[in-house]
Amino acid sequence: MTSRLTYRDAGVDIDKKGRILRDIGPLVRTTFGPGVRHELGAFGGMFSGQFAGMRHPILVASNDGVGTKTRLALTAGRLKGLGHDIVNHCVNDVLVQGAEPLFFLDYLAASHLDPSQFEDVLTGLVEACRAAGAALLGGETAEMPGTYVPGEMDLVGFLVGVVEADEVWPRGIAAGQALIGVRSDGLHTNGYSLVNRLIERDAIDLSTTPDGWSETLADALCRPHRSYLAPIRALRTRVTIRGLAHITGGGLEDNVPRVLPEGVEAVVDRSSFEPNPVFRWIVERTGIEAAEAYHVFNMGCGLVVVVDESEADTAIAALREAGEDAWRLGHTASGPRAVRFLDA
Amino acid sequence: MTSRLTYRDAGVDIDKKGRILRDIGPLVRTTFGPGVRHELGAFGGMFSGQFAGMRHPILVASNDGVGTKTRLALTAGRLKGLGHDIVNHCVNDVLVQGAEPLFFLDYLAASHLDPSQFEDVLTGLVEACRAAGAALLGGETAEMPGTYVPGEMDLVGFLVGVVEADEVWPRGIAAGQALIGVRSDGLHTNGYSLVNRLIERDAIDLSTTPDGWSETLADALCRPHRSYLAPIRALRTRVTIRGLAHITGGGLEDNVPRVLPEGVEAVVDRSSFEPNPVFRWIVERTGIEAAEAYHVFNMGCGLVVVVDESEADTAIAALREAGEDAWRLGHTASGPRAVRFLDA
Repeated sequence: MTSRLTYRDAGVDIDKKGRILRDIGPLVRTTFGPGVRHELGAFGGMFSGQFAGMRHPILVASNDGVGTKTRLALTAGRLKGLGHDIVNHCVNDVLVQGAEPLFFLDYLAASHLDPSQFEDVLTGLVEACRAAGAALLGGETAEMPGTYVPGEMDLVGFLVGVVEADEVWPRGIAAGQALIGVRSDGLHTNGYSLVNRLIERDAIDLSTTPDGWSETLADALCRPHRSYLAPIRALRTRVTIRGLAHITGGGLEDNVPRVLPEGVEAVVDRSSFEPNPVFRWIVERTGIEAAEAYHVFNMGCGLVVVVDESEADTAIAALREAGEDAWRLGHTASGPRAVRFLDA
Repeated sequence: MTSRLTYRDAGVDIDKKGRILRDIGPLVRTTFGPGVRHELGAFGGMFSGQFAGMRHPILVASNDGVGTKTRLALTAGRLKGLGHDIVNHCVNDVLVQGAEPLFFLDYLAASHLDPSQFEDVLTGLVEACRAAGAALLGGETAEMPGTYVPGEMDLVGFLVGVVEADEVWPRGIAAGQALIGVRSDGLHTNGYSLVNRLIERDAIDLSTTPDGWSETLADALCRPHRSYLAPIRALRTRVTIRGLAHITGGGLEDNVPRVLPEGVEAVVDRSSFEPNPVFRWIVERTGIEAAEAYHVFNMGCGLVVVVDESEADTAIAALREAGEDAWRLGHTASGPRAVRFLDA
C-alpha cells in the first residue's frame, strides 16, 4: 500500500485555473471587434473568414516567444510589458509581409501560475491587442512544475493577419534601392540570455541609473518591443514600400537577407546610427565583440525599410512625421544574397 | 575590466538553430497543400484566405501545450509521439466547433535544443499534420537556459481551421438527447504531472509490462492523443451531430458543460464504460480518489457526441464502423448546466 498522491500534491491546482479564467472575461472582451464569432469558454476561438472588399485575401500567421526576457521582467517586477512584447513582436512579423492583424492567441506557462502575475501579463496583452486592432481570440495557461525552473515562466504568442495577395511584401526589391533604418526601443525580445547572465554574474541592481542616463537599467531593459504598425500604415500611403525586415534574433546580418531576392545584397553602413545607450552598456560590461553584438542584438535598428532611391527622402520624412527615428542605413546592390557591412 | 561573456557562454547557439532550420525544409514541405502561399524562411507563413464554395466561412483557432507529457516522453525516449499529441489535441479542439484544419504552427522550447530530439518531434508533427490535412505553416524554437529545468522542454501548438457559419457546433442541444462516449487512447495530454510524480516517487521502470497487460508502461503512457477527425467526418454524413465535447484537463465534469446551453444538464453513467487499464493502474498506485481521478483524466472517454435519441443507435454503429469504440454514455435533461454523475 503506497501513500496517497493527489493532483495538488503534484503541483497543479485545476480549480485555480478556472477561477482566473472567469475573472478575465470582461478584460478580454474589450479586444473584440466585429470579426469575433465566439463566446468565451468555447473550445476554439472563432473569427469571420469573410474579408469585405478584398479580392484575394491571404492569411499571414506568425508565432514567437519573448525568450528569457521573462527572467528580467520577473526580477524587475514588470510583467505587463511582456504582454506588449509578444503581441508587438508578432504584429511586426506579419507586418513585414504586408498584413494587418486580425487575431492573437497567447500561451503562458510557468512552474506555478501566480494569479497576479498572470493578470499583469494579460493586461499588457489586452492593451497591445487593442492598439493593434487584434482580437485576443484565445489562450492557454499551464502549470508545469519540473519543466520550468521554480519561479520562471515562458510566454508565447500566435497572430494571424490578412493581406491582399498583390500587396504582399517584399515586392520588387532590386539592386540600387535605398535601405532605411528605423530606431528600436532597445533589445525588444532578443539577447536576454546574455543580459541575464551578466546581471547574475555582476550582481547588478536593476534600479541603478547608469552615468549619463535619464532612466534606470530596469526602464531600459524592460521597455517593450516597439510596434511598427502605425508608422508603416502611414508610410505606405506616401511611398511604394518594396519590403520590410524585422530585426530580431540574428540581427541585421540574418534578418535583412530574408527579404532579398537572389543576386541582391544589402550594403549596410553601421556608422549611420549610434546604438542605443543600453547596447553600449551591454557591450562594455560583457566585453562581447562588436561582430557578435550585431549578430545577437538589433543594436538600435528594429526595422529596415526598402524603397526606391527616388523615394528615400520622402520615406524618411514620412517616418519622422509618424514619430519614428528613421535614417539612411545603406542601399541594395548586385551581389550575393547577404548583408555586407561597409566597415567590416 | 570584466572578463568577456559571449552569447554561447550564456547557453545559446544561434548558428545551431540556423543549421536545424535549413535541414527541415523538405520534410515541412510535404505538409503543404494548395492553400500555402509562402516559401520557407519568410517572417510569417501565408495561407489563402479564399474558401471556395463556402458562403460564410468562420476561422476557428486553438492553441494548447502537451503539458508535462514531455517529461515522460524524454524519459522513455519517445519524442515523435509528442508531435502527434499536440497536432491531434488542436485538431480535436477545432473539430468540436465543426472546423476542418487548415494550418498549424508549433513552438518548441528547451533548456538546450538537441537537434535529434527536435527532429523526432518534427517528424511527429509532420506525420500528424499530413494525416489531418493541415499545413505546417510555421514554427519557432527557443533555447532558454535558466527558464527550463536542464533537459526539459515544452511543446505548444496553434491550429486554424474553417467551418461554414451555419454548421458550427454545438447546434440545437436540448434536454432529452443522447450522449455517446468515444474511447480515448489513454491519458492523451492531461494528467502527466501526477504520473511523473508517481514515477519519480516509486522509481518506476517504464519498460515494465504490468500483470495482465500486453504492452509496457511506456507504450501505454506515451501513446499519442487520438484524433477524432476521421470518425467525425464519417459520422456527420450519417446523423445530425448536435455537439461534441473534447475531454481534456478537467475531465467529463469540466468539458461537457462547455457545449451545453443554460438549463440543460448532462446525465452521465460512469458505469457505462471501463477505464482503460492505464487509468486503473494510476488510481491503484497513487491512491487518488475516484472523484479526483475523473476530474483530472478522461478515464477512457476522449470525446462526447450529442445526437437526438432517435439517432443514437445509428451514431454508435457509424462510429464503430469508423473504427472507434463508442457507447451510450448518458443523456441530456432539464437542469443546471453541469454534469450529473448517476453514481455520485
